[in-house]
Amino acid sequence: MTADWIAADWGTSHLRVWLMAADGAVLDRRSSADGMGKLAPDEFEPALLRLVGDALPDGRRIPVLICGMAGSKQGWSEAPYMAVPCAAPNGGDALAVATTDPRLDVHILPGLKQTRPADVMRGEETQIAGFIALNPGFDGVVCLPGTHCKWAHVSAREIVSFRTFMTGELFALIAGQSVLRHSVAICGWDDDAFASAIEEGISRPAAVAATLFSLRAESLLDDLSPETARARLSGLLIGMEIGAAKPYWLGREVAIIGDDALAGPYRQALVAQAVPVTLTDAERMTLEGLRAAYRHLKETSQ
Amino acid sequence: MTADWIAADWGTSHLRVWLMAADGAVLDRRSSADGMGKLAPDEFEPALLRLVGDALPDGRRIPVLICGMAGSKQGWSEAPYMAVPCAAPNGGDALAVATTDPRLDVHILPGLKQTRPADVMRGEETQIAGFIALNPGFDGVVCLPGTHCKWAHVSAREIVSFRTFMTGELFALIAGQSVLRHSVAICGWDDDAFASAIEEGISRPAAVAATLFSLRAESLLDDLSPETARARLSGLLIGMEIGAAKPYWLGREVAIIGDDALAGPYRQALVAQAVPVTLTDAERMTLEGLRAAYRHLKETSQ
Repeated sequence: MTADWIAADWGTSHLRVWLMAADGAVLDRRSSADGMGKLAPDEFEPALLRLVGDALPDGRRIPVLICGMAGSKQGWSEAPYMAVPCAAPNGGDALAVATTDPRLDVHILPGLKQTRPADVMRGEETQIAGFIALNPGFDGVVCLPGTHCKWAHVSAREIVSFRTFMTGELFALIAGQSVLRHSVAICGWDDDAFASAIEEGISRPAAVAATLFSLRAESLLDDLSPETARARLSGLLIGMEIGAAKPYWLGREVAIIGDDALAGPYRQALVAQAVPVTLTDAERMTLEGLRAAYRHLKETSQ
Repeated sequence: MTADWIAADWGTSHLRVWLMAADGAVLDRRSSADGMGKLAPDEFEPALLRLVGDALPDGRRIPVLICGMAGSKQGWSEAPYMAVPCAAPNGGDALAVATTDPRLDVHILPGLKQTRPADVMRGEETQIAGFIALNPGFDGVVCLPGTHCKWAHVSAREIVSFRTFMTGELFALIAGQSVLRHSVAICGWDDDAFASAIEEGISRPAAVAATLFSLRAESLLDDLSPETARARLSGLLIGMEIGAAKPYWLGREVAIIGDDALAGPYRQALVAQAVPVTLTDAERMTLEGLRAAYRHLKETSQ
């Protein structure tokens, strides 16, 4: 199997690639655990070749278009941030990276930065680009739940502003490593408890460090179920975020890009605030974003 | 050296004892890393003997009065919580624990619980007891900064209500293990940045998960100093807590019990809100609390 070009999403913990045909079809999808986090700069090219070397034809350079943390300062090569407001980065904005293997023609897409409030993203801008490519007339807010949840205002095919919340990372640290680890289940859920906790997080955000300790106390004193504790922890943190993100969602349409496990609770919380919400698939948006960026790269290089 | 009785503060990570003379003087202070967290129930007595065995006379039982996590469900033996409002637990409330060594006469003080909002403490009640013993007419709020900061309303020598904030634990997790670990110094400080962050934490608590990520972004984009980032992280979290604890401190005198490193920032934050604050030493309050509780134990057993 020979690819016409290769699309790659190179994050902190994973590398995911799609071998693409000339007509835009996906010939194959592959992934590895060679994330940016464990690679020195000179280890990126070998990691890429391990995953796609067999699909590279001899005597021809195959374009590889990469989004994500591979373009960070600690990555393969630094693709400097573009400042919002701007259109999502396209292939013409990508950084060309020299390789040892003559069959590779590597380009890394930049991330986005914002001056005030200071903020950055790497990777999510490509998902947003994919969403804009599929919904060119969209005027509203894109919400991308995850370790670092992003809220981006999109208008006239540009990313106007954005804001990052560390909610997912806080959830993981508190559930897995704080004193609450004894009281919070690894999986399981309680919809009603989540809904109440969302309201509490919205209405009393300052008290969250105390409300969290109450989960521990209720588990000691009242045998609070670990599944309920998990839903309440999630609800408190997402509720705080929903409350603070109100300037983003109020009076706007919201598109959530994310896996069901992450996007579901955000949708439930927003719907409870009477916000019109649509869900879209994160991996599909990444691929669409890389496809859209590649069209520019191809035009530029022709 | 032979002790008349032994006072012990047995926490999660440390055991600290004072060998006491009959007149209440401290003959010796000793400590070990044999905290509750690493001991099975049958390992407590050997751990105690390693630390004080040489100070036990033959042919006589020496009272050992213990406060802290040794009395928890995972500890030596469970001393059930007393419910507030109540006076701080005294020696008469302590749980007698059987020992193999005939020279030991061990008693563990209970912690406190509160039904609504659900809350618990183990160890801090003894510091509060020490403070009340030294300030019997105090009517106000005792604040005990730490991993789990406690605010307790004290009136007429009773603990009326209390609230625990996980602020210290959140600080440690975020500074040491989140993405901010790259941007936050292990030590160092910036007083002005702390003061501004306190105000921001009080006025915009819901946004804290976003404001925290801004510290990371400012470190990437604007070379924010790690010492300033540390002070801002601390200020944001303590500011949230000060805001939520307003029903405790508003219009009341506040006594902070804690080491300088912990108590200083809380004092600065409260003084900025025009709250009258006094500082007292945590270890001294623990010892005074154990002394006060022992007086009851002695009277009861005579």
